[in-house]
Amino acid sequence: MRPSGRNLDEMRPISIETGVTKHAEGSCLIRCGDTHVLCTATIEERVPPFMRNSGQGWVTAEYGMLPRSTSSRMRREASQGKQGGRTVEIQRLIGRSLRAGVDRVALGERQITVDCDVIQADGGTRCASITGGWVALRLAVNKLIKAGDLISDPLMSNVAAVSCGIYAGQPVLDLDYPEDSEAGVDGNFIMMANGQLIETQMSAEGATYSRAQMNELLDLAEKGVAELVAAQNAAVA
Amino acid sequence: MRPSGRNLDEMRPISIETGVTKHAEGSCLIRCGDTHVLCTATIEERVPPFMRNSGQGWVTAEYGMLPRSTSSRMRREASQGKQGGRTVEIQRLIGRSLRAGVDRVALGERQITVDCDVIQADGGTRCASITGGWVALRLAVNKLIKAGDLISDPLMSNVAAVSCGIYAGQPVLDLDYPEDSEAGVDGNFIMMANGQLIETQMSAEGATYSRAQMNELLDLAEKGVAELVAAQNAAVA
Amino acid sequence: MRPSGRNLDEMRPISIETGVTKHAEGSCLIRCGDTHVLCTATIEERVPPFMRNSGQGWVTAEYGMLPRSTSSRMRREASQGKQGGRTVEIQRLIGRSLRAGVDRVALGERQITVDCDVIQADGGTRCASITGGWVALRLAVNKLIKAGDLISDPLMSNVAAVSCGIYAGQPVLDLDYPEDSEAGVDGNFIMMANGQLIETQMSAEGATYSRAQMNELLDLAEKGVAELVAAQNAAVA
Amino acid sequence: MRPSGRNLDEMRPISIETGVTKHAEGSCLIRCGDTHVLCTATIEERVPPFMRNSGQGWVTAEYGMLPRSTSSRMRREASQGKQGGRTVEIQRLIGRSLRAGVDRVALGERQITVDCDVIQADGGTRCASITGGWVALRLAVNKLIKAGDLISDPLMSNVAAVSCGIYAGQPVLDLDYPEDSEAGVDGNFIMMANGQLIETQMSAEGATYSRAQMNELLDLAEKGVAELVAAQNAAVA
Amino acid sequence: MRPSGRNLDEMRPISIETGVTKHAEGSCLIRCGDTHVLCTATIEERVPPFMRNSGQGWVTAEYGMLPRSTSSRMRREASQGKQGGRTVEIQRLIGRSLRAGVDRVALGERQITVDCDVIQADGGTRCASITGGWVALRLAVNKLIKAGDLISDPLMSNVAAVSCGIYAGQPVLDLDYPEDSEAGVDGNFIMMANGQLIETQMSAEGATYSRAQMNELLDLAEKGVAELVAAQNAAVA
Amino acid sequence: MRPSGRNLDEMRPISIETGVTKHAEGSCLIRCGDTHVLCTATIEERVPPFMRNSGQGWVTAEYGMLPRSTSSRMRREASQGKQGGRTVEIQRLIGRSLRAGVDRVALGERQITVDCDVIQADGGTRCASITGGWVALRLAVNKLIKAGDLISDPLMSNVAAVSCGIYAGQPVLDLDYPEDSEAGVDGNFIMMANGQLIETQMSAEGATYSRAQMNELLDLAEKGVAELVAAQNAAVA
Repeated sequence: MRPSGRNLDEMRPISIETGVTKHAEGSCLIRCGDTHVLCTATIEERVPPFMRNSGQGWVTAEYGMLPRSTSSRMRREASQGKQGGRTVEIQRLIGRSLRAGVDRVALGERQITVDCDVIQADGGTRCASITGGWVALRLAVNKLIKAGDLISDPLMSNVAAVSCGIYAGQPVLDLDYPEDSEAGVDGNFIMMANGQLIETQMSAEGATYSRAQMNELLDLAEKGVAELVAAQNAAVA
Repeated sequence: MRPSGRNLDEMRPISIETGVTKHAEGSCLIRCGDTHVLCTATIEERVPPFMRNSGQGWVTAEYGMLPRSTSSRMRREASQGKQGGRTVEIQRLIGRSLRAGVDRVALGERQITVDCDVIQADGGTRCASITGGWVALRLAVNKLIKAGDLISDPLMSNVAAVSCGIYAGQPVLDLDYPEDSEAGVDGNFIMMANGQLIETQMSAEGATYSRAQMNELLDLAEKGVAELVAAQNAAVA
Repeated sequence: MRPSGRNLDEMRPISIETGVTKHAEGSCLIRCGDTHVLCTATIEERVPPFMRNSGQGWVTAEYGMLPRSTSSRMRREASQGKQGGRTVEIQRLIGRSLRAGVDRVALGERQITVDCDVIQADGGTRCASITGGWVALRLAVNKLIKAGDLISDPLMSNVAAVSCGIYAGQPVLDLDYPEDSEAGVDGNFIMMANGQLIETQMSAEGATYSRAQMNELLDLAEKGVAELVAAQNAAVA
Repeated sequence: MRPSGRNLDEMRPISIETGVTKHAEGSCLIRCGDTHVLCTATIEERVPPFMRNSGQGWVTAEYGMLPRSTSSRMRREASQGKQGGRTVEIQRLIGRSLRAGVDRVALGERQITVDCDVIQADGGTRCASITGGWVALRLAVNKLIKAGDLISDPLMSNVAAVSCGIYAGQPVLDLDYPEDSEAGVDGNFIMMANGQLIETQMSAEGATYSRAQMNELLDLAEKGVAELVAAQNAAVA
Repeated sequence: MRPSGRNLDEMRPISIETGVTKHAEGSCLIRCGDTHVLCTATIEERVPPFMRNSGQGWVTAEYGMLPRSTSSRMRREASQGKQGGRTVEIQRLIGRSLRAGVDRVALGERQITVDCDVIQADGGTRCASITGGWVALRLAVNKLIKAGDLISDPLMSNVAAVSCGIYAGQPVLDLDYPEDSEAGVDGNFIMMANGQLIETQMSAEGATYSRAQMNELLDLAEKGVAELVAAQNAAVA
Repeated sequence: MRPSGRNLDEMRPISIETGVTKHAEGSCLIRCGDTHVLCTATIEERVPPFMRNSGQGWVTAEYGMLPRSTSSRMRREASQGKQGGRTVEIQRLIGRSLRAGVDRVALGERQITVDCDVIQADGGTRCASITGGWVALRLAVNKLIKAGDLISDPLMSNVAAVSCGIYAGQPVLDLDYPEDSEAGVDGNFIMMANGQLIETQMSAEGATYSRAQMNELLDLAEKGVAELVAAQNAAVA
């Protein structure tokens, strides 16, 4: 029934390749089916003004799509003179999600910026950015630990994200673009490795959903996140 | 236990005054405790380029805060040269939520813009904007119906929104600013009159939540939205 | 002869409601007929860079119109990415006018920002902003005096403003929108309580005026300002 | 008593050199003492959107200062990404003033843009821009008349401007920079050749003025404008 | 003598992988040593306004660097609100260079946009962008030819680019970042397959060069471009 | 054969008038035929952040065109909200070229900004800006020397620039606008007084050139620069 022929609760193939750029403190290229995102983590020994002298660190994120990551070319945001509302919304979500898994006191007064750049898009780019972004963050933190710059590990848990939605009347896991563009209801679920929720965003455009349907999607999301966490752990091992 | 002395499941006093500006096709001043938002609805007999010749209408929203709606003065976005990420995120949410309650074919090729301007802020401005924005929308649509410009009512249901969160370890309804700034987890729940969900956004900054907690907040939200819908109906009667 | 039926030298009804927002140090909602402006005054214990270490304070103003304060909706300046020329011109005038009534040495090195946001427009918004802005400023200064933060009162006089113009060949006081949009000549007169002039702006678009006509308008303006000063004094009493 | 040694009612030397650029339809370099402004008039056979199909023409103006036209270098507005409030205010004034002298029906549906670029500033740049801008406009219109593109002359009168102020307690004509920066009250007076007023802007920063003082400045302005009109006529002859 | 141990006239290893994104009409990932650029070509069946109804096509280019393509993180241009001067300069050069190899009449009224996004930078990104951009362009044109949308091949020749410079007093081919940051003189040479020059940019910061030195660099460039052309041909075969 | 009737190797008449504005530390109006550029040099006793505490000075340049310096009016960059790509490219070139002739250690920690504003354009504005900009720089440095603020002269040589191109199949010196707009190949050559090269930019739009042609243009450029250097020396003498 799904355009890809997948089962309702079947994820796309996941691949996470680490160490893909020589400059970044942590990096990976995450592929969730045909959605490919390059994630890099940059460590800076300073925090934004609002965090100075707080004894705590900060984790933030930026998101972008290459102009031809999509089926038809998008205008380059840099040449348009501003980031669109969707971009701003997504990068705020990525940053907030990753911070939920960080003990900012243990991180100390430094900032880690996670850049997520979509090389190729086929649905679920914000979820792939969070899942891949966490890997880049993990690798950067490992580097700090190895260098003796951290006393304890500031990462409290994996953070991973998956989208689910109601497609053709059925709850499905890990929407690809053909599903995403047709689904009446879709949600993004960001969780820790133990299934605790960090953020839930579930919206309907021109439709609605019941609490029962919300619970069905949460069941799917728990399954998907468990698989993503396994892939993260394999990648950073 | 709550700073305001309210019960855990107690809303702030709601007041919705309609017809507050002479120019707008629909308008109201909604007061949820000390949060006051002026909502106006503007009808235009044209749709944005991406909707032209679709036979469907469009509903969109814009959001702003007066510089001194807050405890300390915020910089005016117009003089800063752009809307901040939070503003963009909120106005997209308002527009999406209101559209969920609209039959866009029945609306016909016209656009209704709902402006939500926060006069005084004390937490929950986005929820008040949605609840009040629906009233302005309802009044503008009523005007079209009365003028014979619509064959059937394009509004399928009330749309209302409330925030809930976990404050001092307890689930509480309708967070005010002192609660909002302390809550580890908070969510915005947008629903129709019958309790069907339109959008759920539940996030934790530096914390997490379980599915059980999510369900507790949903229970509170259902109670709150029912009260808001009653207030909307009383206002437009 | 006037669309409103007023006499040539008759002001619109004036109402000044104070204390309309809980956060601002001073605030009022001024209504000059159907022109309604919300004015707030914000005290900050710092001055702009060009005034630092001068021993003097600063008073500045910002002006905005809500998108649907007007008959047809205006684009929101924040979403357009800049303040229009008219806005910039008006807020510079408000600031300059209010400063004329302030002893900046007596104010000390602090800044008061007066925000004037037009809720509903029907002509004369800049004059209403100055007249209402002075009330907000007066209330904020009273707060400083009461708190013992000022040795002497830095406000030397009321500052109030009224527009006059030549409408249908006759000099008229306090133009409303139907008059303003038809008048060949119109002027804004900003004065102190004793009738001393602070600023005169009198312009003709596609027309001209004689010195005799200018004097007729000044006569009207003196009458109008006296009534505005009385309303200010009643409001702050 | 004046820094320049001039009499109270004495203008600076005026020079208006025409035909200074080969491309513009009309051009002049006006020198009022050490204030030098290059004015060009450009004719385009189209009007802005709001004037289309009105049967009327439009005259508009833009104003700029070269970065080192002033004593210390100003930042270039093009590199700052926007025109400052003062620039916007001035160019609106120039356009409005020149339009007052134009029969826009006689001009026909075409636009004339007058660019005023300050090469060297020593006070009074906006007045010099209006006076010189009118010469450029006159020359461009002459070209249209000569080419047979106009049936009747759309210029109804010369338009010229001069500043006056109260300096060291005395009313003085045609302020230069040392006077302008010290004057408590200063005004710009835009008039036609017959002394009819087009625009009056008279302001006091931290001071006030009486109607008697206003009349003294108007007397000076009439004298100054008469001399400027003579210089304009000599230049275009 | 070179930091990399290369001979003076030795290029870095070149690799050009084609078909790297599924959406673009043509794409490649070019690697010149540690400089990696993703190039995509997008065909649109419309031309910019200035080319409409000319019977000719247009080729343009955009350039960007991922924030962490460099040794320390660069600010994202999209979030800064504008493309920097260097970016603008480079993308104009890429577009101009590629157009030199295109018969725009044979291309017909369509536009091809070549996006060059630097994934990892180690000197010579603009040259890699041109060389890789040509491959993406070639593949996109091949697609048009295969689909029967072109009668004759609009690409007249390969276009490739290499940098040379004077490093430690010696002329060297294909500067990497350590060389580039030290070189007193460096140049970019864009050529066709037959060695004809399209663009030469040779500059010295705080130094100069003789015509003899310029000729030495041109000799090196001819050698380098020949190798790049061979790599291009191998990639598109 | 040339539209102007000049010989292939004949420059346009050069005139350099110095001291044209009273405020700038150095200034000139350079006229190369009908191309007229006003150049001013401003000395500031501070350097940009990236040069602080380096013991070295900085020379930078800005470039602009008056809106009606061209045949049809260009939009004013200040009102467009940004400098175009061409402007940015040119002002970076001017700055880089002038710096090549400066011993920045001898200059000491101060900045000289050279503003080049095109009053009238007829081709070759960037070359005229460099040649005239050097004169303004020379005069400003002379002022520092005369005031005893410099121990040794930081200007190591004249810097001058000329354009050459292939017009109607022939190499020609000092292109004017009619030639520039038709030339298939054109180049800008920036040199020192001794003929050493500072920057070469030679480009072909939709065409190519051989090394032999490049050498012919270099021969012409050497002749032209020699004449420009003589004119510079005469002007500053």
